[in-house]
Amino acid sequence: MSRLVDIGENAVVGRLIEQLGRACENDDQLVVGPGDDCAVVDLDQADRYQLLKTDSIVEGIHYLSETAASKVGWKAVARVISDFAAMGGMPSHLLITIAMPPQTPMSYLEQLYHGMQNCASLYGATICGGETSSVPDGAAAVISVAATGWVEKNRCVRRSGGKAGDLVMVTGSLGGSITGKHLSFSPRVNQARWLTDHFEINSMMDLSDGLGCDLPRLAASSQCGYLLNENNLPCNEGTSVDQALGDGEDYELLFTVSSQIANSLRASWAKQFPDLKLSVVGELTERSEEVVVNEQGWQHFKR
Amino acid sequence: MSRLVDIGENAVVGRLIEQLGRACENDDQLVVGPGDDCAVVDLDQADRYQLLKTDSIVEGIHYLSETAASKVGWKAVARVISDFAAMGGMPSHLLITIAMPPQTPMSYLEQLYHGMQNCASLYGATICGGETSSVPDGAAAVISVAATGWVEKNRCVRRSGGKAGDLVMVTGSLGGSITGKHLSFSPRVNQARWLTDHFEINSMMDLSDGLGCDLPRLAASSQCGYLLNENNLPCNEGTSVDQALGDGEDYELLFTVSSQIANSLRASWAKQFPDLKLSVVGELTERSEEVVVNEQGWQHFKR
Repeated sequence: MSRLVDIGENAVVGRLIEQLGRACENDDQLVVGPGDDCAVVDLDQADRYQLLKTDSIVEGIHYLSETAASKVGWKAVARVISDFAAMGGMPSHLLITIAMPPQTPMSYLEQLYHGMQNCASLYGATICGGETSSVPDGAAAVISVAATGWVEKNRCVRRSGGKAGDLVMVTGSLGGSITGKHLSFSPRVNQARWLTDHFEINSMMDLSDGLGCDLPRLAASSQCGYLLNENNLPCNEGTSVDQALGDGEDYELLFTVSSQIANSLRASWAKQFPDLKLSVVGELTERSEEVVVNEQGWQHFKR
Repeated sequence: MSRLVDIGENAVVGRLIEQLGRACENDDQLVVGPGDDCAVVDLDQADRYQLLKTDSIVEGIHYLSETAASKVGWKAVARVISDFAAMGGMPSHLLITIAMPPQTPMSYLEQLYHGMQNCASLYGATICGGETSSVPDGAAAVISVAATGWVEKNRCVRRSGGKAGDLVMVTGSLGGSITGKHLSFSPRVNQARWLTDHFEINSMMDLSDGLGCDLPRLAASSQCGYLLNENNLPCNEGTSVDQALGDGEDYELLFTVSSQIANSLRASWAKQFPDLKLSVVGELTERSEEVVVNEQGWQHFKR
């Protein structure tokens, strides 16, 4: 009998998506089903799609019981908003589900909501409902955020739109998020909105599990191979290449554009966001082979 | 320091709603915020509102670890669909969040999704995404369902629309759900749709915590008192009045209508749904006093 731990998250999700597939295909409103950063629904609004996303954080896995509640709340909401940014969109309404032990102090819950609301309002979203449920004392708390959002139909960017020859770019710096950034990061909504307003972005996602995990996902969605140039990784100060690739929780944007517009994009970016790096870390290739360039030359990607 | 267990669910939710209140008031799209069965959003679709709802079930509280996974899945989705019925609406898209220990068998998760999908498709809804996360081994599993739905603007029924003099009606039978119904109930979507299509329904909600808990909530939302006639309760076979009032998980409709249309409604109902009881269990009153009529005469409501 295979257990979730034997199969691994990617394969578990893959099997569930396969199970859901036919029902999704029969849904005329559904533009993008499971497998992208958000689901995309066409509600017959003139120029907009609706975006749908849910994400949860678990005590002991995504945060510690001693973490300040307002930071936990910020993180829970910011993770979801980062997924809207990844599609080029904006969040609008959030529903919060809290499952906590009965012994939790009320002040903890209020601080948690304070953090959630701070993040939501900064990005123009409203917490409009939810549910508070209890888990047995001693059990891990779970905070789940479900959200609607929107994006203009002609600015919706999927993971699957990458083309062979595209350059692969990432915003900001990678690695070492666990030292603090994972609790206080700013979802790259403004940057994504600016990108889709001024340039043709072929594919995009947010970096939640680390570039070493997420770039292969984006390339696979786009039915491309990729070349990753480890020499160009924007490693955070004090982090190694391996950490930049594998730590995860960077919540930066990973996107691909035609090489023809890359220089113009980088020049405009430097003026628009002078304090935020933009790095070319590789390219999408025709073949399904995966190649990593590093100081020792290149190697086939084996992770 | 007050803890959630000291304050109680109603007061916890009340305090959080108060905290969220101002942000909700400033949201022009939000027609109904926290406190009703669903949030209601006006997306500028011609004749429709969007409905939003999230709900979760927890292992050891809402179901047992030995319960068949497909039944657990059915229940998780049916609870949410029941909330759409309570507004007179229909579900459309569902996002599923599963937090489970790594040792969970893959077949359990597949059966769980099977049950969820059966329920969703029966009511015209699509599971279009979600997330699978892990909780530490030994921790309780949490299944959270977030959903969008819709209702015609002129058929959206709130808890707060009840008027003094309205008769209070419930569908089906009450009490004893724990013996099986809580895992296999049919959300009253068809009944609610029929009601709002043919009659003016002033207020409505679904019975999740028991009539003794939910009728006071509906009356308070409508700024009314109520009279509850315990002699008229549709108790399930083998259940006492106290069980019918307090067991919860009935997932029946509780609604109020003007006394002038009550007889006509009951006659039409009997033809349309010959196999499902409809009972008049009380009325809304002007005063804030709460009165229960029982075999011993009447008493002020103290629960």
